[in-house]
Amino acid sequence: MIATIVLLASLLLPLASASRVAVVAGTHGNEFTGVYVIEQLEPAALRRDYPSLRVETLIANPRAFSATRRFIDADLNRQFAGRRSEDTQQLEAVRAAEIEAQLGPKGSAQACDVVVDLHTTTSNMGCTLIVNSYCQLALRAAAYLTQAWAGGGGEAHASQAAAPYLCSVGRAGLTIEVGPTPTGLLRADAVATTQSSLSASSSSLPRSLLGPSGRAPQPPPTVRVYVDAARVPWPAAEGGSRLPGALIAPGLQDRDFEPLAAGDALFVRRNGRVVEYDGESGAVVYPVFVNEAAYYHAQSGAAGVALATLADWPIEDVTPESR
Amino acid sequence: MIATIVLLASLLLPLASASRVAVVAGTHGNEFTGVYVIEQLEPAALRRDYPSLRVETLIANPRAFSATRRFIDADLNRQFAGRRSEDTQQLEAVRAAEIEAQLGPKGSAQACDVVVDLHTTTSNMGCTLIVNSYCQLALRAAAYLTQAWAGGGGEAHASQAAAPYLCSVGRAGLTIEVGPTPTGLLRADAVATTQSSLSASSSSLPRSLLGPSGRAPQPPPTVRVYVDAARVPWPAAEGGSRLPGALIAPGLQDRDFEPLAAGDALFVRRNGRVVEYDGESGAVVYPVFVNEAAYYHAQSGAAGVALATLADWPIEDVTPESR
Repeated sequence: MIATIVLLASLLLPLASASRVAVVAGTHGNEFTGVYVIEQLEPAALRRDYPSLRVETLIANPRAFSATRRFIDADLNRQFAGRRSEDTQQLEAVRAAEIEAQLGPKGSAQACDVVVDLHTTTSNMGCTLIVNSYCQLALRAAAYLTQAWAGGGGEAHASQAAAPYLCSVGRAGLTIEVGPTPTGLLRADAVATTQSSLSASSSSLPRSLLGPSGRAPQPPPTVRVYVDAARVPWPAAEGGSRLPGALIAPGLQDRDFEPLAAGDALFVRRNGRVVEYDGESGAVVYPVFVNEAAYYHAQSGAAGVALATLADWPIEDVTPESR
Repeated sequence: MIATIVLLASLLLPLASASRVAVVAGTHGNEFTGVYVIEQLEPAALRRDYPSLRVETLIANPRAFSATRRFIDADLNRQFAGRRSEDTQQLEAVRAAEIEAQLGPKGSAQACDVVVDLHTTTSNMGCTLIVNSYCQLALRAAAYLTQAWAGGGGEAHASQAAAPYLCSVGRAGLTIEVGPTPTGLLRADAVATTQSSLSASSSSLPRSLLGPSGRAPQPPPTVRVYVDAARVPWPAAEGGSRLPGALIAPGLQDRDFEPLAAGDALFVRRNGRVVEYDGESGAVVYPVFVNEAAYYHAQSGAAGVALATLADWPIEDVTPESR
C-alpha cells in the first residue's frame, strides 16, 4: 500500500537511515477526505510492511477541522514561504510555526524526507498531483503515476517556485488534490481515489519501481505539467453582493484540463452576458481549479479560474544533494 | 416566469386582494444557489408582469450567509414549530421571531399567502419539492409540476405535520431542494434548476393552469409523495473522530429516490464491513437525503439517511378556508 510513499521512498534508498515520511490532512479544515484516509492508516501495519520508513500522520489544522472551515484566520497552505511575523495573532501563522518545528524546518537537514499533503477540491480535477519545479522527487512521482496508473489520475500541476504550501516543509513534498467533491462531505469515490493515490491499487507498482536490483528504474526524461499562466478573477457583483457577479459558463463547468481557446466562454454574468477568454495567455490554454469554491474571494490569494499552459519539465538524476 | 409562484397564486385567485408571496433563500447560510437566484429577481419586472402578486424576497439568515455556515447557533429551518423561548440568546431563535413578525405570524390571517423557501442539498435529489400534508396548495403545486415539468423534477417529499420549517410561516408553504451541489458553491446547472422551478421554463405553464376562464384546472385526485419512514443514523467512529465511522455504500451514493431492498448495502464501515438495510421499514424503501453533509451530526435533528415509503396523498378542493 501507499504507492506514493513507497515510490518516493524508493527514490530515497541511497539514504542510510530510515526515511521519515509525513502524511498530512486537514490543512484545509473543511476537506474531510484526507482526514478520513489518515485516520484509517494503521501504524503497526505500516511499521511491519515498510520497516525502512518512519511514517507519521498529522491533522494540520485541527481548529479549522472542528469548525468545518477552510481556515480560521488565514489559509494555512499559504504560510510556508519565507519568514512569518513572530508576533502575529493569526491562528494559522502560529500553527505553521508549530508544523515547521515538527516536520521541518523547511530547507533544513532535520526536515522530513517526504511530506504528502492530502486535499480535495470542488473542481472536477480527478486526482491531481501538485508538484513544484524545485522538487525532483515529486516530478518523478508524477511521471511514474501518469504512466502506471490506470485510474485517470496523475495530472501534474505546477506552482510557483517559492512554494508557500505545507508540503514544501519536507525535503520532498507533494500535494494530492481529489475532486470534484463537496467540502464538509465524505464520498466513497473520493476516499477511494485518495487512498489509491497513496496505496498501491496495483501492488506491482512499488515492485516495478524498485526493480530487480532494489533501485528505482530510470524515469522518463520529462513529465508533462500544467503550469499556471494566469488567474482570471471572478466578475464582481453590483450592489455589494458577497456572491460573484457571474457563474462559470456551463460549457466550462467540470472541464478542468481540457483546452480552452480564445473566444470560448468563461463566465455568464448576471445579466446573461458571456465573458469570453481573451486569448491573452495563449491561443489555447487549459483551465484548472474551475469553480473551486475557495476561490470566489481573495482570501486564498488565488481568486478566480487558473489558466494553465502545458510544459514538459525535465527530470534530472536524483541524488540526496539534488533533492 | 416564476411558475411556482404563479401556479400557487392561480390557486389563490378567489382572494379579492393581491396575493402576498415571499421567496426566501439563505435559510441555510452555506446554500448559495437560492441567494443568487433571488438577487436576480427584479422587483419592477415582477410588478409589471404580475400585478395581482406582491412578491417580496428575503435572505433568511444573513449572519450565517456571511460566514458561509449552515447556521450560527441552531438550524433556522427547525425553529417554526410551536413557541420559542423568549429569553434565548440563540441567534436563530431571535431571527425566527423576526421572520415570523415579517412574514407571519404562522397560522394567522396576516401571514403571507405563500412562502417559497429555496434550498440546496449535497444529495442527488434533482429538484425536490418538499410539501407537507397540511398544505393543499403545495400538494397541488407538486402534482402540477410532476405532470408538466419536463426537467426530471417535481418529486414530492413529505415531512411531519407539525412543520418546523420556515415555509410553514406562510398560509401556504413550499420548500425547493436542488442537488447535488456543494455548499458554498454556485453551479450554473443548480442555479438554472432552481430558476426553472421558480420560473416558467415554458411560459405555457401558468397560462394552462389559469385556463380559459381564469381559474385553475382540476388537479389530479392524488399526488405521489415520498414519506419519511425512518432515519438510519451514521455509524459512529471509534476513538472520538468527529467524522462518521462509515461511508455511504458506493451502490447507494447518488441513488436518491431509487428502491432499496432489505439486504442492500447502506454503509461501508472503516473496517470494510458493509451495513445492510435491515428491512425494518418495509421490504423496499426509497432513500432520500443520501449523504447530505448537514446530516453527519445531529445538529439539524435529522442525522443519517432518510428512508421513505411511497404514498398517494389525496388532493382536496382548495378554498381560502381549507388552505
